[in-house]
Amino acid sequence: MKPSKQLLNDILEEVRPLIGQGKVADYIPALAQVPANRLGIAVCYNDGEIIQAGDSEEGFSIQSISKVLSLTLAMTLYEADEIWSRVGKEPSGHAFNSMIQLELEQGIPRNPFINAGALVVSDLLHSRLSAPQYRMLELVRSLACNPDVAYDKDVAASEMQHSDRNAAIAYLMRAFGNFNNDVVPVLGNYFGYCALKMSCVDLARTFSYLANKGMPLGTDTPLISPTQSKQINALLATCGLYDGAGEFAYRVGMPGKSGVGGGIVAIVPGEMSIAVWSPELDASGNSVAGTAALALLAERIGRSIF
Amino acid sequence: MKPSKQLLNDILEEVRPLIGQGKVADYIPALAQVPANRLGIAVCYNDGEIIQAGDSEEGFSIQSISKVLSLTLAMTLYEADEIWSRVGKEPSGHAFNSMIQLELEQGIPRNPFINAGALVVSDLLHSRLSAPQYRMLELVRSLACNPDVAYDKDVAASEMQHSDRNAAIAYLMRAFGNFNNDVVPVLGNYFGYCALKMSCVDLARTFSYLANKGMPLGTDTPLISPTQSKQINALLATCGLYDGAGEFAYRVGMPGKSGVGGGIVAIVPGEMSIAVWSPELDASGNSVAGTAALALLAERIGRSIF
Amino acid sequence: MKPSKQLLNDILEEVRPLIGQGKVADYIPALAQVPANRLGIAVCYNDGEIIQAGDSEEGFSIQSISKVLSLTLAMTLYEADEIWSRVGKEPSGHAFNSMIQLELEQGIPRNPFINAGALVVSDLLHSRLSAPQYRMLELVRSLACNPDVAYDKDVAASEMQHSDRNAAIAYLMRAFGNFNNDVVPVLGNYFGYCALKMSCVDLARTFSYLANKGMPLGTDTPLISPTQSKQINALLATCGLYDGAGEFAYRVGMPGKSGVGGGIVAIVPGEMSIAVWSPELDASGNSVAGTAALALLAERIGRSIF
Amino acid sequence: MKPSKQLLNDILEEVRPLIGQGKVADYIPALAQVPANRLGIAVCYNDGEIIQAGDSEEGFSIQSISKVLSLTLAMTLYEADEIWSRVGKEPSGHAFNSMIQLELEQGIPRNPFINAGALVVSDLLHSRLSAPQYRMLELVRSLACNPDVAYDKDVAASEMQHSDRNAAIAYLMRAFGNFNNDVVPVLGNYFGYCALKMSCVDLARTFSYLANKGMPLGTDTPLISPTQSKQINALLATCGLYDGAGEFAYRVGMPGKSGVGGGIVAIVPGEMSIAVWSPELDASGNSVAGTAALALLAERIGRSIF
Repeated sequence: MKPSKQLLNDILEEVRPLIGQGKVADYIPALAQVPANRLGIAVCYNDGEIIQAGDSEEGFSIQSISKVLSLTLAMTLYEADEIWSRVGKEPSGHAFNSMIQLELEQGIPRNPFINAGALVVSDLLHSRLSAPQYRMLELVRSLACNPDVAYDKDVAASEMQHSDRNAAIAYLMRAFGNFNNDVVPVLGNYFGYCALKMSCVDLARTFSYLANKGMPLGTDTPLISPTQSKQINALLATCGLYDGAGEFAYRVGMPGKSGVGGGIVAIVPGEMSIAVWSPELDASGNSVAGTAALALLAERIGRSIF
Repeated sequence: MKPSKQLLNDILEEVRPLIGQGKVADYIPALAQVPANRLGIAVCYNDGEIIQAGDSEEGFSIQSISKVLSLTLAMTLYEADEIWSRVGKEPSGHAFNSMIQLELEQGIPRNPFINAGALVVSDLLHSRLSAPQYRMLELVRSLACNPDVAYDKDVAASEMQHSDRNAAIAYLMRAFGNFNNDVVPVLGNYFGYCALKMSCVDLARTFSYLANKGMPLGTDTPLISPTQSKQINALLATCGLYDGAGEFAYRVGMPGKSGVGGGIVAIVPGEMSIAVWSPELDASGNSVAGTAALALLAERIGRSIF
Repeated sequence: MKPSKQLLNDILEEVRPLIGQGKVADYIPALAQVPANRLGIAVCYNDGEIIQAGDSEEGFSIQSISKVLSLTLAMTLYEADEIWSRVGKEPSGHAFNSMIQLELEQGIPRNPFINAGALVVSDLLHSRLSAPQYRMLELVRSLACNPDVAYDKDVAASEMQHSDRNAAIAYLMRAFGNFNNDVVPVLGNYFGYCALKMSCVDLARTFSYLANKGMPLGTDTPLISPTQSKQINALLATCGLYDGAGEFAYRVGMPGKSGVGGGIVAIVPGEMSIAVWSPELDASGNSVAGTAALALLAERIGRSIF
Repeated sequence: MKPSKQLLNDILEEVRPLIGQGKVADYIPALAQVPANRLGIAVCYNDGEIIQAGDSEEGFSIQSISKVLSLTLAMTLYEADEIWSRVGKEPSGHAFNSMIQLELEQGIPRNPFINAGALVVSDLLHSRLSAPQYRMLELVRSLACNPDVAYDKDVAASEMQHSDRNAAIAYLMRAFGNFNNDVVPVLGNYFGYCALKMSCVDLARTFSYLANKGMPLGTDTPLISPTQSKQINALLATCGLYDGAGEFAYRVGMPGKSGVGGGIVAIVPGEMSIAVWSPELDASGNSVAGTAALALLAERIGRSIF
């Protein structure tokens, strides 16, 4: 059953009262300024139809959602072993920016969706692409069917000014031999990816390939193979929501990825990709109203991978 | 597509060469004696049809697979909040018997499938049932459609003799106020559940309720609700394979639960429950050949939740 | 220079205003009832002279100070290797009852003055003495020159009722093969040692052997050798004050041992042993006013090992 | 009793057979090339007399011994609170370059003698001195009464090339707000201090101020106060030998500081400062033969602070 626009509107109104219960990310000024009352949703069916409600065309900082895109790009450039010898596939059981496990496990990050793992993936992209930020932008514009998608340079600059923790993570991996390029330019690219400004509609279209066995919307050239698409969905289901993946699986039952900008992308394999946005976050860093909206949607349309 | 008996046979022959690459659990003598060369599989369709191959009717110690049964039983006896205030829903990122996280997180286990979490669930059963072991046996016999399922008393006694680590875990939770009964009898029940001796056929039948929205095989009385069934599958997908859940999702793509006896149960929601058995384990404690067999089966029949 | 009674009185008056800034131990009811305003000090010179002030003859629960006595007793019964292969000599860097390091370091406690280490020492005593509590009492009465020293049975019983954390520690060590006896009787003895009720005067006399190269007061039979006496003082200096040993060395500059009953014993090797008592503790579990009194005394009499 | 040259010679011959049982530091090439068979000792009496034996005039890389000098310099420039609010005084219970505790304790290093702590001290020096390396050299030449003491530029450059781990530590502290300057120049100064090339005679003379209440050799102007001198000795006793401070106190019984170049400095307050050198290290990073020589010396001359 495709959700109707009315259903999406109903869901947004049902979760709107949750606004006020979370906390907008404030670790960089550029994110702290985002109005807390934004709320949007977009669903992209595999046939290309978009259903949307609320602030679904307003751009926001996708932040960690970009980690799925950089992993995808790396999977098009490297053999599986080249990636998975440098980053694991397991949930971390720790906060997204923790270094404790990274030290105990000799510089091998637990998975590609915590900061350390995404930095290794960025390091991989840096080694093989002459202009990784340009290539990423090209990819995202194509996936989103929107040539206007762009980096938010203020956000990227603000991230770079507050980059000490990520620099520490990258240097620790370098010390363990798991980071091959200079730290600063890789951080620059990484913050660029995080600073991509996209709307719910952009994101729902972009991630359609994960609902459609690796095939991007409106093309007949696969971006990745059906097996790779399943693998990414599997990683999203176990590791996609920071230290809240279990709760998200329990409540929503779809592979998903969140960002501290308040966006969440979720996948119903074979059917649709979904994007929600509401800036206030819970203690794990996931959008409060966004998670609730996805849980309601899953229930109303009877979709869950479980 | 239902797998044919021939397909199951082919898969077993394909993975049989892996025997020798793992290690039979040896922390208690009773388990160390199990012949390493056993290999069996059984698939139970939601319509009740069983397809099986190899040593699929030989009983083995189900060990941690019982943790799903005790959680299910607890969910029939308690409100959700009564359970989830005492045990989390997140992957642990640590070994199944680690106490480090348990101390840092004030005696609240990460999830019901690590030892600490299963001990809390056993404590819950102990508080509300007058004869928890008897009730569990009754439930399992009914689910397996097999009145001969029984506890292996030698295994249970051997576990009790080597119970120091689990005693330490239980006492630590008691110290944090998250364990209400005397430790020794709860351990006794817990080891009993682990010492259930069942075959692949028994297990495939038993776990049919998770493939069928909470409805056990051959009944029209739900054991748990469809929502609860989804919730358990979600927990299995994120936490069911010790510290190897991510890899299992990546390779197999089904919710599952393993035991150190070498068994693994996996679920294709809406279609079938599967049980495999091969005693040799990988470093995470999951059956080497069993995981490989499930990965092949998933690929051959084109089933994955992702 | 021997401190005069006047000096001790002055010091007590100077530190008395600190009462109110700490917190009486409340993890067992028997300790929580101790009046917070008690303050006493006693100095025992190597020539036997006692100088004292304040509540110096009122008995209190010596708690962890007993860990020095049980180590000493073990050193009279075992070869060095038999002890130091089972417990380390290094500061822990963690709270006194933490299990994290114990798990990471395979059940070998960092030193004999954290709970885990003292439990190993109690296990050693249990293995070699037929009546360890009786032998300990005999030793302490002799060292204190006071046949009335006794166990406070209410405190010991209260400890036993709240023994879950220590039971967890002991069982974890058993699981690692570093605990040889049944847990419960060893805990019983351990809590007995902790529940010894002694005054500052008793304690200053008792620990005179550490100021006098192993020779107890009023005897010419050494309890331990001069080398062993130095070794214990060295362990006290690095590990004697829980996770506050560095601060104590910095401020006081003497080997010492504290207990959560509010007592602290300190040694000036070659000259004197000192005991102070004030029940309110700082965050590390050390007496606030007691530490301040020792710091003042060290400064006024110009004594420090540094 | 002053040790005779003969005694020092005897001690060196007694410990020489230990050469071969440790491992020369090899984390940078410049250190790995040091001949393993060097062995030297020098004792500097408070009256200025030097007694020496073996390779006591050959320069070596003092490495972490410099951490005492940078702390001392900081104590001449800052109030106590300005220092001790940014770095602790407790043993770490972890390896010298671990980041685990640093993350758990919010970027406040445990003590000034682990890498994190020394980097904070270097940051303090950087904030208040226009040319910290020059000032340090001036100080050390003056203390050593040797105008030829110099930085080994090859060692410093080699350290800088392998600086990732220390960079990670510094960036993590910056992320917690406990590092005020740019990371790279502070690292440069820090590696310079570590690369000071000094002999046992230089070191024994240099550290004479800690044996003499803060008064450097041959001057009547105190470098630091008697209280500060005691405080540094106290910190050395509890934290000076990486994660082997307890063992060193137990065996040697003097405040001391080791470096991975194989040097150890030890203090007998009120009497003498001692320096030994033998490049092979034990698992904690302390000189094997050097520690043994100090233990023998302590025993033969009957000196211990305990």
